[in-house]
Amino acid sequence: MPPAAAKPSFQRIALAGKPNSAEVESALGEMRRFLAARGCTVVKDGTSADLAIVIGGDGTMLSAARDLVRHRVPLVGINQGRVGFMTDIGHDDMQAGIGAILDGRYTLEERALLDAEIFRGKRSLQKTIALNEAVVGRGAQGRLIEFQLTIDGEFIYKLRGDGVIVATPTGSTAYALSAQGPILHPAVPALALVPLAPHTLSARPVSVSDGSVVEIKILHAQDARAHFDGVLKHDMAEGDRLELRRSADLVRFVHPPGYSYFATLRQKLGWSELLEKARQTG
Amino acid sequence: MPPAAAKPSFQRIALAGKPNSAEVESALGEMRRFLAARGCTVVKDGTSADLAIVIGGDGTMLSAARDLVRHRVPLVGINQGRVGFMTDIGHDDMQAGIGAILDGRYTLEERALLDAEIFRGKRSLQKTIALNEAVVGRGAQGRLIEFQLTIDGEFIYKLRGDGVIVATPTGSTAYALSAQGPILHPAVPALALVPLAPHTLSARPVSVSDGSVVEIKILHAQDARAHFDGVLKHDMAEGDRLELRRSADLVRFVHPPGYSYFATLRQKLGWSELLEKARQTG
Amino acid sequence: MPPAAAKPSFQRIALAGKPNSAEVESALGEMRRFLAARGCTVVKDGTSADLAIVIGGDGTMLSAARDLVRHRVPLVGINQGRVGFMTDIGHDDMQAGIGAILDGRYTLEERALLDAEIFRGKRSLQKTIALNEAVVGRGAQGRLIEFQLTIDGEFIYKLRGDGVIVATPTGSTAYALSAQGPILHPAVPALALVPLAPHTLSARPVSVSDGSVVEIKILHAQDARAHFDGVLKHDMAEGDRLELRRSADLVRFVHPPGYSYFATLRQKLGWSELLEKARQTG
Amino acid sequence: MPPAAAKPSFQRIALAGKPNSAEVESALGEMRRFLAARGCTVVKDGTSADLAIVIGGDGTMLSAARDLVRHRVPLVGINQGRVGFMTDIGHDDMQAGIGAILDGRYTLEERALLDAEIFRGKRSLQKTIALNEAVVGRGAQGRLIEFQLTIDGEFIYKLRGDGVIVATPTGSTAYALSAQGPILHPAVPALALVPLAPHTLSARPVSVSDGSVVEIKILHAQDARAHFDGVLKHDMAEGDRLELRRSADLVRFVHPPGYSYFATLRQKLGWSELLEKARQTG
Repeated sequence: MPPAAAKPSFQRIALAGKPNSAEVESALGEMRRFLAARGCTVVKDGTSADLAIVIGGDGTMLSAARDLVRHRVPLVGINQGRVGFMTDIGHDDMQAGIGAILDGRYTLEERALLDAEIFRGKRSLQKTIALNEAVVGRGAQGRLIEFQLTIDGEFIYKLRGDGVIVATPTGSTAYALSAQGPILHPAVPALALVPLAPHTLSARPVSVSDGSVVEIKILHAQDARAHFDGVLKHDMAEGDRLELRRSADLVRFVHPPGYSYFATLRQKLGWSELLEKARQTG
Repeated sequence: MPPAAAKPSFQRIALAGKPNSAEVESALGEMRRFLAARGCTVVKDGTSADLAIVIGGDGTMLSAARDLVRHRVPLVGINQGRVGFMTDIGHDDMQAGIGAILDGRYTLEERALLDAEIFRGKRSLQKTIALNEAVVGRGAQGRLIEFQLTIDGEFIYKLRGDGVIVATPTGSTAYALSAQGPILHPAVPALALVPLAPHTLSARPVSVSDGSVVEIKILHAQDARAHFDGVLKHDMAEGDRLELRRSADLVRFVHPPGYSYFATLRQKLGWSELLEKARQTG
Repeated sequence: MPPAAAKPSFQRIALAGKPNSAEVESALGEMRRFLAARGCTVVKDGTSADLAIVIGGDGTMLSAARDLVRHRVPLVGINQGRVGFMTDIGHDDMQAGIGAILDGRYTLEERALLDAEIFRGKRSLQKTIALNEAVVGRGAQGRLIEFQLTIDGEFIYKLRGDGVIVATPTGSTAYALSAQGPILHPAVPALALVPLAPHTLSARPVSVSDGSVVEIKILHAQDARAHFDGVLKHDMAEGDRLELRRSADLVRFVHPPGYSYFATLRQKLGWSELLEKARQTG
Repeated sequence: MPPAAAKPSFQRIALAGKPNSAEVESALGEMRRFLAARGCTVVKDGTSADLAIVIGGDGTMLSAARDLVRHRVPLVGINQGRVGFMTDIGHDDMQAGIGAILDGRYTLEERALLDAEIFRGKRSLQKTIALNEAVVGRGAQGRLIEFQLTIDGEFIYKLRGDGVIVATPTGSTAYALSAQGPILHPAVPALALVPLAPHTLSARPVSVSDGSVVEIKILHAQDARAHFDGVLKHDMAEGDRLELRRSADLVRFVHPPGYSYFATLRQKLGWSELLEKARQTG
């Protein structure tokens, strides 16, 4: 562990919060005063900040991270009420947690994300990123789709169903988990390919190296749609291809002392009660 | 791609086959004659061979690999009838496939395995390896067990149920898959932790870095048992711990030209029929 | 078993086929000639027929059954190429199968279906039926929905996710099966409630008596949509309710001698190969 | 609803409790005094009682029910601490709940159970009952088994794996649920057939009419074993058959006013928190 002094000091701080929440507004005001008292500058333009503090839920954090990842701005998340996977500081611990981070006592965690591009023939229709997941699924008409998945140009499978999720480790505890996908620890350099309501009963989630280029091509569909992190969508037609590869950028999360991925996982999934909330016993 | 000449030539060859099978006996005889004609020496002691050729199913291959991995002997598998995950050359392609390999046309694939050790207090009860998986499960009495799982010394969860599987990528298509575990491509440096009939409905498979040390400790059990690759078992009592870490050794599989992991997966799981063998249609 | 003479004779026959298929057109012509030779009358109006013969896949059969169920017309299905759950006579066995049925050698199987009605307040927005399933899911915008499920007026659960399927036994081998729902034998008087990608990991499919009235109410959703048998859809807004109850009508399937539900199931799900197409062995 | 007076009055009461628990002993003493004050007779022989009051967990209740079902003695369960599926009265509500029942304010719920018999050829090896489930699984050696399942004499499937569970609706929330089986409401007259870690990926739980005779025959196994309600086990050899059919008897549960199956289910499975304890949000 390098000495704290080796870590960058956070001077210019950006603040972001869940919109339309009086609670979050109030917490943002409190944080602004706290930062001023600590001699930090609160900047309006997040892209030039040394650190972004995000108050809200994982959704708010995800949006902020999408905006800032290209600018390599690290983020720290404060939840309002319930711990989040990415917002791991509780409101009551806000000043202690941020204070510790400003003192240089923190861990920096880098998470992989995906560069995503949709092609029609050779023409690029859409370029974006996915921190959690890219989904190819039913379009506005809600009809079944049929697609083909290739990895590094090798055919893997064709599938009919509701679609497929390609999730990063960060996204493996989000939508992919609802679809019976595997949890991937953030240190595992892999992507989870999770089919959605596949026609074929032997279809199973597959985890592949995150150095792979994953391509999903629409074979048959009245309409289909790609979703990115649940916030951006783009319609796809027969023959369109979504290409996914690990981004050169990395999301950078800052955690206060005492952070534990598994402790968060236990709390979010109710595992702390493993032996308490169970089926018939004794 | 290095030129074929750079590859080691296989001169001393060991042969192994599924016991008590006239078919396999006959194939072994055929292979012996073929190797003699190619000028190779068939050796009795596999541990000193340049290459081991295994004829049978994945179970036969697994046993041979367990015997030879410490000696760094590469293996190639020939199936009798049905393709296996590890026995990827069909009987009809046996001479062509082995011939190509002897000519230097092959790929060498290294697979991670686990060192496993069971402790009672500080005393070591059993030391072995696991290529596919280590399982902690019900013992001879068949009663429910309760255990605790830690990773690198950090508590992850306690669980009551039938047990837990810790699978390598190689094992992710074996027992772990039957227990709803995720398929891990062999290039993903991870282990899959798959609970067996867990009491808690929110329990889910988790994949962690294969650099992790995984420990499973029996908390309560009338009896419990560890299984390794389905071939070695060892009883465990309350308080006993199974420690698992990636071995310094690697299993080395030799594949003939044209081998594809995903093609095997498709064939084994019936994915080639994805669009044919499905539910209600059209 | 009553003597065959006790069964109704089928004199007036309706024919239906999958549209836009030359193969099906040709089979329909063949069937028309066969029926004429047998002295039957082919009628244009299916609703007044004694029997409807449907040539195509399960989708074609499903559409025909939706049209005819109110008129109590029994149906028999002939598949083109691949056996279906509802189209159990193969093209090659078409004349023998239909011939046997006309001779009075058949079994009549009655299947439950659902009456479905969507309400906004007290106003009925849509009334229809569901032979396979009713689904409440994401609407045109593709956003997450939150709904509440009640049975006979009793609150069961609230759920956020992609939606929920309410399937009849007939539908339990269709979309619901892709979503990990349980197979219900047609003789089980139950409905399967199957959540789609639920946020909550402890959500599970529940089967309830088909005498229950199931209501799904949209709590929060930018948009939501109900689907019926994959062929009819209706948008739902916050507060809208879908009410489902067993219909007084029954779908009536006619099967030739030798029909077996489980044989069809085995064939459709690939269970005939249970011991052949499996994971690592021997 | 018939007037309360029409219900049998409970005069002779049997008491049973979880062994080796000081808490339960104390609660039994409290209940004894309460019953004496109400003028009831506490009898030693449960089989001649009008009502059995069981204090403990679902396991205690299950044992008592197994003992008393042949004698048609109704049971009511009191849990110590945590609500159970079958022990639905909390300790704090014990006097109010039992008082109401003695006043005639209660509902009587009848649950189906299974008669189970193991045969070797024509010889009967074991006869017992199963309220929750019968399991055919791995034996003392812990090796894979292969079995064949028939219903009413019709072949359904062969399977290799850890085994199979045949669960009643009552048992559908017990072991079968851990093995991904479907929840069956007690009013559904069905049995759930749930494979345990099946080799074949397309194997799925199937629910069949509880009027069916289910037979499981061991095809290949070094050793195998049947379990009944987790309390009785019997070894099985190759060729042995377990025959299961609905018993003519019924388990009779007495519930105090306000009992709700779904409320218990929500509480046991953590569904009351459906919208609270979830994955990434807002």
